[in-house]
Amino acid sequence: MSKNIIVGQSGGPTAVINASLAGIFAEARDMEADKIYGMVNGVEGLLKGTIADLSEYIKTTEDIKILCQTPSSFLGSCRFKLPNIEKGNEIFEKIFEKLNELEIEAFFYIGGNDSMDTIKKLANYAKIIGSSIKFIGAPKTIDNDLAVTDHTPGFGSAAKYIATMTKEIICDSAAYDLKSVTILEIMGRNAGWLTGASALARGEDCEGPDLIYLPEIPFDMDSFTEKVKNLFEVKNTLVIAISEGIAFKDGTNVCEMCFKNENLDAFGHKSLTGAAQYLAAELSSNLGCKARSIEFSTLQRAAAHIASDTDINEAFMSGAHAVRAAFDGETGKMVILERAAGKEYKCVTKTYDIDKIANEVKTVPLSWINDEGTNVTEEFINYARPLICGENDIIYKNGLPVHLKLKNKVVQPRD
Amino acid sequence: MSKNIIVGQSGGPTAVINASLAGIFAEARDMEADKIYGMVNGVEGLLKGTIADLSEYIKTTEDIKILCQTPSSFLGSCRFKLPNIEKGNEIFEKIFEKLNELEIEAFFYIGGNDSMDTIKKLANYAKIIGSSIKFIGAPKTIDNDLAVTDHTPGFGSAAKYIATMTKEIICDSAAYDLKSVTILEIMGRNAGWLTGASALARGEDCEGPDLIYLPEIPFDMDSFTEKVKNLFEVKNTLVIAISEGIAFKDGTNVCEMCFKNENLDAFGHKSLTGAAQYLAAELSSNLGCKARSIEFSTLQRAAAHIASDTDINEAFMSGAHAVRAAFDGETGKMVILERAAGKEYKCVTKTYDIDKIANEVKTVPLSWINDEGTNVTEEFINYARPLICGENDIIYKNGLPVHLKLKNKVVQPRD
Repeated sequence: MSKNIIVGQSGGPTAVINASLAGIFAEARDMEADKIYGMVNGVEGLLKGTIADLSEYIKTTEDIKILCQTPSSFLGSCRFKLPNIEKGNEIFEKIFEKLNELEIEAFFYIGGNDSMDTIKKLANYAKIIGSSIKFIGAPKTIDNDLAVTDHTPGFGSAAKYIATMTKEIICDSAAYDLKSVTILEIMGRNAGWLTGASALARGEDCEGPDLIYLPEIPFDMDSFTEKVKNLFEVKNTLVIAISEGIAFKDGTNVCEMCFKNENLDAFGHKSLTGAAQYLAAELSSNLGCKARSIEFSTLQRAAAHIASDTDINEAFMSGAHAVRAAFDGETGKMVILERAAGKEYKCVTKTYDIDKIANEVKTVPLSWINDEGTNVTEEFINYARPLICGENDIIYKNGLPVHLKLKNKVVQPRD
Repeated sequence: MSKNIIVGQSGGPTAVINASLAGIFAEARDMEADKIYGMVNGVEGLLKGTIADLSEYIKTTEDIKILCQTPSSFLGSCRFKLPNIEKGNEIFEKIFEKLNELEIEAFFYIGGNDSMDTIKKLANYAKIIGSSIKFIGAPKTIDNDLAVTDHTPGFGSAAKYIATMTKEIICDSAAYDLKSVTILEIMGRNAGWLTGASALARGEDCEGPDLIYLPEIPFDMDSFTEKVKNLFEVKNTLVIAISEGIAFKDGTNVCEMCFKNENLDAFGHKSLTGAAQYLAAELSSNLGCKARSIEFSTLQRAAAHIASDTDINEAFMSGAHAVRAAFDGETGKMVILERAAGKEYKCVTKTYDIDKIANEVKTVPLSWINDEGTNVTEEFINYARPLICGENDIIYKNGLPVHLKLKNKVVQPRD
């Protein structure tokens, strides 16, 4: 029997989602897998038959290294939610038909909550039909909101980018001796992990943001304006970090106060950008100060050039562990990171029952937010600091980081 | 007689404006200057008496290196335009009084057009009153719009950041197999150098932006929409780079079509942000596609973590040359970069009469823009490519680049 595997990437990309792919590829090759297939654009691609043979792209150790420094999903992504097993058997049948055609022994999916839901359903369906194919998930999300795992690959690199840019912007904003406020809008709809990471900028050479607002705490406009007013009495240039998802007590998102959302969205999706722009405009007219907003936007998940080396290594380890688990006979599991006790930071990979992970959201513990709701505590810093440490030794060409590119999307399955 | 010098930084900061400061400091020390003063917040600080003794901050070779990787103006900046000599003699008198008090022999100003205007006026005034103080300018501006010099320190690093992020965003935007357009808004009011730099992303592993719009060419909405429509027939995910300063034929800035400007500006200054947001909204409603905008914002001038090593070295060289010129008796000059002929890129520093530089604006030659006004030519690429090459070996601590910080702003002049 052939020992073929297939891997897909799903949901929003991260700076290190390809390091997990590299880990899966490298471990599968070491464990003498025959074919290592990639689904192009996730399960959607599998259904359409757009499959890539990864060994055509990854031939050398340098290719692995370049894959690890390539942002976004090398294989392309999708946002495809499987129906419940009772209802959509046709889709499940088609997926298993494709997998059997390719003689797949193990199926890996690198993604967030929705992707883990896919793994869960496919593993359950396999049990029902008596298929021996193994299904293992490898976690990724910059949002860090997956349950059970200490943190998710992707978070550390986004946090490193955010902390670095926050530090550089604080430097920049202090250049003029004028009253000014800069509001940084950071990703995170329901969880404030990334916004909290802006506090990592704080150190001997930087004061860090003056105020930090996470979506875990209701936002109050009056108290916000008051705090800014008070801060202006002791300093001239303020930098404030807010999560895109902050909402008033009544549940209205702050960004809904902004024109932009009405303008931009052609799909009826509620876009969550605009909160910083709105708050800057309010401060400017209420306090008469110079106020500007900066959206960190998708740069947060794409800035592989400043990825955290710890994050890259853990993403790679997670992928490799997924392969070992599948080849050991496990299925319906997600790889998690477990932080070892002790002073020195260390994480090990394990697997965990996917039923207990999928569709749960992990927010920042309220005890890690200060009483005023304007900062994170030392516990948060101690948790997040090691995750941004270490720099990747990027390969540059012509002044720019080199990326690996998927050129030919479709390959024929073997006869 | 003492051999004291004073240096200031002025205008918008860049990622390497402190490398010029480091060059001035290092060369002045090597040439055995006595005191090396810094004006805190430029000429404004000099007038107020906020002066720093730089040797208190820069003690080791590592300090020099850290100064070179610190974004923004280490000494703080100002936007202070000197009056014409005829009219404002009081201010000139006060400046020279301060300089004489500090026994200054040479005055250096690192900045753009306005700063060179300051050097020009002070040098002329010195001539009138028979002062022997030398005045030399060191160029900086991310906009690259200073006349005579081949390019300006600061441009290469901003261009490297823009090209890197453009490349990473193109990767990111291709993850989903959906019709989408991403519009990147890049700095540059009248000159498209930075927007053109997005084309540097193009290479074996990246197609580069699909369309590039510089402020040198009038923007036409219908032709723009048509081009996007046509591109969608051959590909799904488009990335478009525009300059914040693009304007319609009648001179109206595209950004003026956007709500944002009315909201944000408390000072009556016309803010130039919002063009990308407006165009994304238009495309979204006219073509029914997913459209988003990303403003590169001040990150462009602050992203020292990915500064070009060529740029850092040239900024340093410019500072050092300024000191040698002043000590050789030159005054009323700006340091320029001159590109040597030949295949291998090489720039040398020279000085140039400031009268012929100040207040001139250098835009992208029209022959370096394609006929349709939607891209830059190979000449542009050949010009800009060497300026982004080389990576700085950044010193990190706790996962973040280390910066040098000015702690105590005011020092007493010596007795």
